[in-house]
Amino acid sequence: MPEFLKLLPPNEARALLLAQIGMPAVVAEEIGTASALHRVTAEDVVAPHPLPEFTRSSVDGYAVRAQDTYGAGDSSPAYLRIVGEVPMAEAPACDPGEGEAALIHTGGMLPASSNAVVMMEHTQVVLGEWGPARPEREVGRSETGKPQAASSADPPTEIEVLRGVAIGENVIRAGEDVTKGQVVVRRGVWLRPAEIGGLMALGAVSLRVAARPKVGIISSGDEVVDPYRKPALGQVRDVNAHALACLVSERGGEAVHYGIVRDEKDALLNLAASAARDCDVVLISGGSSASVRDTTAEVIQALGPPGVLVHGINIRPGKPTILGLCGRKILIGLPGNPVSALVIGYLFVGPVLERLLGLLIPRPAASVRAQLTVNLPSQTGREDWWPVRLRPSGELAGGWLAEPIFGKSNLIFSLAAADGLIRIPPEANGLGADEIVSVRVM
Amino acid sequence: MPEFLKLLPPNEARALLLAQIGMPAVVAEEIGTASALHRVTAEDVVAPHPLPEFTRSSVDGYAVRAQDTYGAGDSSPAYLRIVGEVPMAEAPACDPGEGEAALIHTGGMLPASSNAVVMMEHTQVVLGEWGPARPEREVGRSETGKPQAASSADPPTEIEVLRGVAIGENVIRAGEDVTKGQVVVRRGVWLRPAEIGGLMALGAVSLRVAARPKVGIISSGDEVVDPYRKPALGQVRDVNAHALACLVSERGGEAVHYGIVRDEKDALLNLAASAARDCDVVLISGGSSASVRDTTAEVIQALGPPGVLVHGINIRPGKPTILGLCGRKILIGLPGNPVSALVIGYLFVGPVLERLLGLLIPRPAASVRAQLTVNLPSQTGREDWWPVRLRPSGELAGGWLAEPIFGKSNLIFSLAAADGLIRIPPEANGLGADEIVSVRVM
Repeated sequence: MPEFLKLLPPNEARALLLAQIGMPAVVAEEIGTASALHRVTAEDVVAPHPLPEFTRSSVDGYAVRAQDTYGAGDSSPAYLRIVGEVPMAEAPACDPGEGEAALIHTGGMLPASSNAVVMMEHTQVVLGEWGPARPEREVGRSETGKPQAASSADPPTEIEVLRGVAIGENVIRAGEDVTKGQVVVRRGVWLRPAEIGGLMALGAVSLRVAARPKVGIISSGDEVVDPYRKPALGQVRDVNAHALACLVSERGGEAVHYGIVRDEKDALLNLAASAARDCDVVLISGGSSASVRDTTAEVIQALGPPGVLVHGINIRPGKPTILGLCGRKILIGLPGNPVSALVIGYLFVGPVLERLLGLLIPRPAASVRAQLTVNLPSQTGREDWWPVRLRPSGELAGGWLAEPIFGKSNLIFSLAAADGLIRIPPEANGLGADEIVSVRVM
Repeated sequence: MPEFLKLLPPNEARALLLAQIGMPAVVAEEIGTASALHRVTAEDVVAPHPLPEFTRSSVDGYAVRAQDTYGAGDSSPAYLRIVGEVPMAEAPACDPGEGEAALIHTGGMLPASSNAVVMMEHTQVVLGEWGPARPEREVGRSETGKPQAASSADPPTEIEVLRGVAIGENVIRAGEDVTKGQVVVRRGVWLRPAEIGGLMALGAVSLRVAARPKVGIISSGDEVVDPYRKPALGQVRDVNAHALACLVSERGGEAVHYGIVRDEKDALLNLAASAARDCDVVLISGGSSASVRDTTAEVIQALGPPGVLVHGINIRPGKPTILGLCGRKILIGLPGNPVSALVIGYLFVGPVLERLLGLLIPRPAASVRAQLTVNLPSQTGREDWWPVRLRPSGELAGGWLAEPIFGKSNLIFSLAAADGLIRIPPEANGLGADEIVSVRVM
């Protein structure tokens, strides 16, 4: 397994791994919709009934037959007799016919013979001669037009419609949002607040989602100790296990910690085999020295076919990454350098989890457009990912400046100081100051 | 409280509310760092010791005094005597002096007198006349140069350095990542995997974070029923309570459900007062009809000063939004229309939560650049937010097409079908087909 004989470009390496993974069957579990945020649907959700279930008014106004209002205007109002009010939360008791109308509120159910709603502000109550003064419109018209018998204490019995409505205007028809039997949320959808709300509207209070893929996390390295322990001189605390666990959890997976193993092939093989048995993915981080990287590759190869698929990627940071498979279990050897491990986590572990979750359309990587503040050199032929800090800038279109964080590439707090990463494509030999770049937000 | 007398632009409305909220003191709680992902630090975290704690090698190679390698090259190697190997996880037992070197692995602790590491690949082991053949370099030089007494089974005792190193090269100095006492994570930082990893590296296994702001959620409307119940004809299930709860949770808050209340001022006032007592923010959604909006405004005003700050925003969807304060408690009246409620949630509730969490730098809104597929008209003077679907497009720079979702603006599944929202600024009367737009990912 000679290392780095052929460094694959990151996109090719990822495509090769994903092609081998294929489209695995998703393990589904039924959960309450109210707690399904950021889960992924495991099957299509079909509307059990139309939405809305009944034709509703979308404004406050009067339910009418649109035909009765055609041609109505300020100077030529249509007169309609009010026959009742549609109560909220109930089927209407009245059904205005030709030349009639019913008071209706937003969300109220449209009476059977109505086909539109005239907005309240486009109507004028017609008052009888005993009614109060009407400052907006001359009283005369109502007196001469259609006199009213009602006293001013009674509800109005007639309105002037000052603007005609078309059939369907100001109503939401039954089934206009979704029809019965329609697929409302497809399988493979990352659930957001809008889907949760929509499912609730349909009474779909539980649903089947993809079980969170289990991701076993192993740290290797003789010098690595648990962060909860005080390291002796020469030892360092494990950074990667918890950083990667967070990344896994934010991408929809469930991290399972397998602890720290010494740089010994048998010990690593045993632990990796155990993790591969119980998990869908195993991340082995550490092994920054060449001998340990070789051990990781040997272990992945020894676990079973197809074994190591990619050994070394033409990327910085993250070159000594190993991608492999043992049956359907995915094994990724990550560099011990915590910056490399996280960058590779974002670029490789994230997409693997999306595939295992059955996410049909990958979520677009969140990014921000920004103007680079300085020149950034890079080596042609290699893809670089550089940590940058975003600073607000009022003057620019995007409103952000991207300030690269310099310093050695393996310092975790230089990554923590960054808001995101920018990609320097392999064909470039760097990016220029003032260039507009896309910052992938971490 | 006349409604819509003055519709504020959204940015002004938000700025007005945030100015009134000010910078409230954050309620802190101590939690384990391993479970602090997406929490916000409540105080500066100071490094208890430098990181790394000791000067380490960043490569596999030989620890040397850089001075001994100056001027070394392929044709003029420097010769160094190997005095030992630095073990991993321990302080080095040897301390090579002038003309000497020690084998060291990535992460190994640099001996006291060394100040640089020569990479393994820039060295050549000098073998004695009994050693194995050396295909890469002619054997003669080592024989003539510095003959070795060791047999080939013994470790090499001498190396040729084929490239000089500068002081500090290939080492990470103690304190190079962070120094003792340095603020490593400021107060007001949204914690991501990189910060969690860094804190673990320092042994900061617990930390003080801002308590999740409590957000009480009330739905109002006579026709609204709990999603777990079957609505009668004329009734609809509550969409907003759970959609908003998800949004609150994804923005770092803790949603508290207060249920559904009828459109009666006293009932709403009692429930809102109870929510305002126990929560930091109260969201009252529903009230799509003018009378109910007025009730919400009256209730917010009645709860105590300063009362209603904004009544109506020049935005679509979401015009009938009410922003208010009762003492330090924030009250937001959201439209009953679920699309409006969610859009206002993204644009107003999110920033309010950021403020209450003490987030010092607002998280940049995740966005994607895309090319608009069709013309989108809008009304000049009003800010519109339009739901769009993203479709991959290989041809374009950003790689995405933004396809507006048409249809009535109050259908929850038209929002669920969208990947994000695009903003049509008030000064525009629309956006043109093929324009490059920034899609705010939901």
